[in-house]
Amino acid sequence: DKSLKVFTLNSNTKLAEEIANHIGVTLGECSVSRFSDGEIQINIEESIRGCDVYIVQSTSAPVNEHLMELLIMIDAVKRASAKSVNIVMPYYGYARQDRKARSREPITAKLVANLLETAGADRVITIDLHAPQIQGFFDVPIDHLQGVPILTEYFKEKNLEDIVVVSPDHGGVTRARKMADRLGAPIGIIDKRRPRPNVAEVMNIVGKIKGKTAILIDDIIDTAGTITLAANALIESGAKEVYACCTHPVLSGPAMERIENSKIKELVITNTIPLSEEKYIDKVTPLSVAPLIGEAIVRVHELKSVSILFD
Amino acid sequence: DKSLKVFTLNSNTKLAEEIANHIGVTLGECSVSRFSDGEIQINIEESIRGCDVYIVQSTSAPVNEHLMELLIMIDAVKRASAKSVNIVMPYYGYARQDRKARSREPITAKLVANLLETAGADRVITIDLHAPQIQGFFDVPIDHLQGVPILTEYFKEKNLEDIVVVSPDHGGVTRARKMADRLGAPIGIIDKRRPRPNVAEVMNIVGKIKGKTAILIDDIIDTAGTITLAANALIESGAKEVYACCTHPVLSGPAMERIENSKIKELVITNTIPLSEEKYIDKVTPLSVAPLIGEAIVRVHELKSVSILFD
Ligand SMILES: Nc1ncnc2c1ncn2[C@@H]1O[C@H](COP(=O)(O)O)[C@@H](O)[C@H]1O
Ligand SMILES: Nc1ncnc2c1ncn2[C@@H]1O[C@H](COP(=O)(O)O)[C@@H](O)[C@H]1O
Repeated sequence: DKSLKVFTLNSNTKLAEEIANHIGVTLGECSVSRFSDGEIQINIEESIRGCDVYIVQSTSAPVNEHLMELLIMIDAVKRASAKSVNIVMPYYGYARQDRKARSREPITAKLVANLLETAGADRVITIDLHAPQIQGFFDVPIDHLQGVPILTEYFKEKNLEDIVVVSPDHGGVTRARKMADRLGAPIGIIDKRRPRPNVAEVMNIVGKIKGKTAILIDDIIDTAGTITLAANALIESGAKEVYACCTHPVLSGPAMERIENSKIKELVITNTIPLSEEKYIDKVTPLSVAPLIGEAIVRVHELKSVSILFD
Repeated sequence: DKSLKVFTLNSNTKLAEEIANHIGVTLGECSVSRFSDGEIQINIEESIRGCDVYIVQSTSAPVNEHLMELLIMIDAVKRASAKSVNIVMPYYGYARQDRKARSREPITAKLVANLLETAGADRVITIDLHAPQIQGFFDVPIDHLQGVPILTEYFKEKNLEDIVVVSPDHGGVTRARKMADRLGAPIGIIDKRRPRPNVAEVMNIVGKIKGKTAILIDDIIDTAGTITLAANALIESGAKEVYACCTHPVLSGPAMERIENSKIKELVITNTIPLSEEKYIDKVTPLSVAPLIGEAIVRVHELKSVSILFD
């Protein structure tokens, strides 16, 4: 199908290749480099006139470089008379500033949505937005895919016994419930609270943990503070062993050291964000979202329903 | 005047302080830092409700970081109920991609204009856009100030004799003409052309150079290839000495080494882009645009004409 073109920028070239393979196309020819002063230079090296173009780019670190690459690429694709400009953003960065938590804060998740639309995006395909409400920040269609089924499938195949799926905070309970349903398991919640201001948080565990195999699930693991403290608390509460999983392995700053030194037995992640060499430690198991995204692209392109991929 | 607030981001803090001093205000309290994963975190630490806010930021290197800081700050200021969001961008980066020179190229100068407006900019104050047409890329008002008067004033005070003002290429002749008029001097042009494809360029000099003091003028000096070759050609054509000047000292890659080793006697620049320590070599004389910008802000704020500053 010559009217479908997939291009990759610099954040996620390996995933983009897997996606292209899944669909049965080769990646479009395009070079993304820098001028001497650091400005981004993009050369699209094949005609895309009249084509449905899919651009694969996560806004992972270095987030500002990756976001600007994407915006400039969208501009170039639009001006090259593509029929449609479709953004495949496996990880949507800047999503955690999604409301004014305090006075005079920006709402970066909305700003990014506006920037993408202004540049010329006609559609966005993404996975596990930090808040599903971010879908409403867009006026163009957005396909919001889910990582939970991929993570669950992996644990199903492990045939673990006597599982409890644990959310590391209140915000993630719905996600934990989804995984628990698929595994036929109960849920637990790490219930942190601060008894009085300026007093240390207490970590209370809701749910039966003793003797069980706990699976901690979150959308993003960033500095890994929350998840490793949760894992250790679960072991102290008598859990037999603790697995952890997430869709987006941001893993910045002290994350790898904390995970290495924690009670987490295995960390299961997806490749929405590529791991640098030194992050591939023994404990880490990466799963691919390429089949999920590839299927979504095929369905979007053939005007079929994508909703089957949500479940 | 409490309704006027000047904030600085990270590109140009020293210039911003000079501007604030010139106006007679103190810089607004604001911290601009990074989360662990590299995402920009901005905290505006004083109320700006109902204020006319001026944000000082050049989109110099690292250009993508500086541009994103600016966009996020605009978003925060707008959401904090400022009366107006005014961008002071002494150097407008991404300006050299201002047209489709080849197929499938982006037009980054227009993209940046759109991004600034989408984020919420109500006005832009800038100096020496690479092409004056970029003014038309904006729908909001833009005050386009000129660096030539500042550079000319410096050379006037030097009392040089028998001057010729030289443009290093065809594109800069209008700029050279402006400076020459102010100095009562003739102009020269470095007239590069390629006799046949794949044959080395010949550098021909238009105008009388022999025995004269040449002043090369450009808007941007980036890798300094053009300007140093021009300087050396002028000396070979019998110029007594060669000065060079520009508004925007991008000075990337091999620039400083080339300037050091060239026949340029003195390089006069402005502080639209701050120089790192190692770029302050003996030959370099920096001039400040703070009075020019300060005056423009006062005039904009008091609803007076800014056009007097163009000349
Ligand atoms: N990139 C980031 N890294 C760490 N914290 C962030 C980041 N972006 C936003 N935040 C903070 O995380 C909080 C939102 O997280 P959450 O409650 O999980 O949605 C907000 O208070 C933000 O200030
Ligand atoms: N940041 C940059 N550094 C070097 N060259 C650039 C940059 N941005 C654009 N260009 C190129 O410079 C040319 C435009 O320069 P000019 O003819 O001086 O306006 C275009 O062909 C661009 O490809």
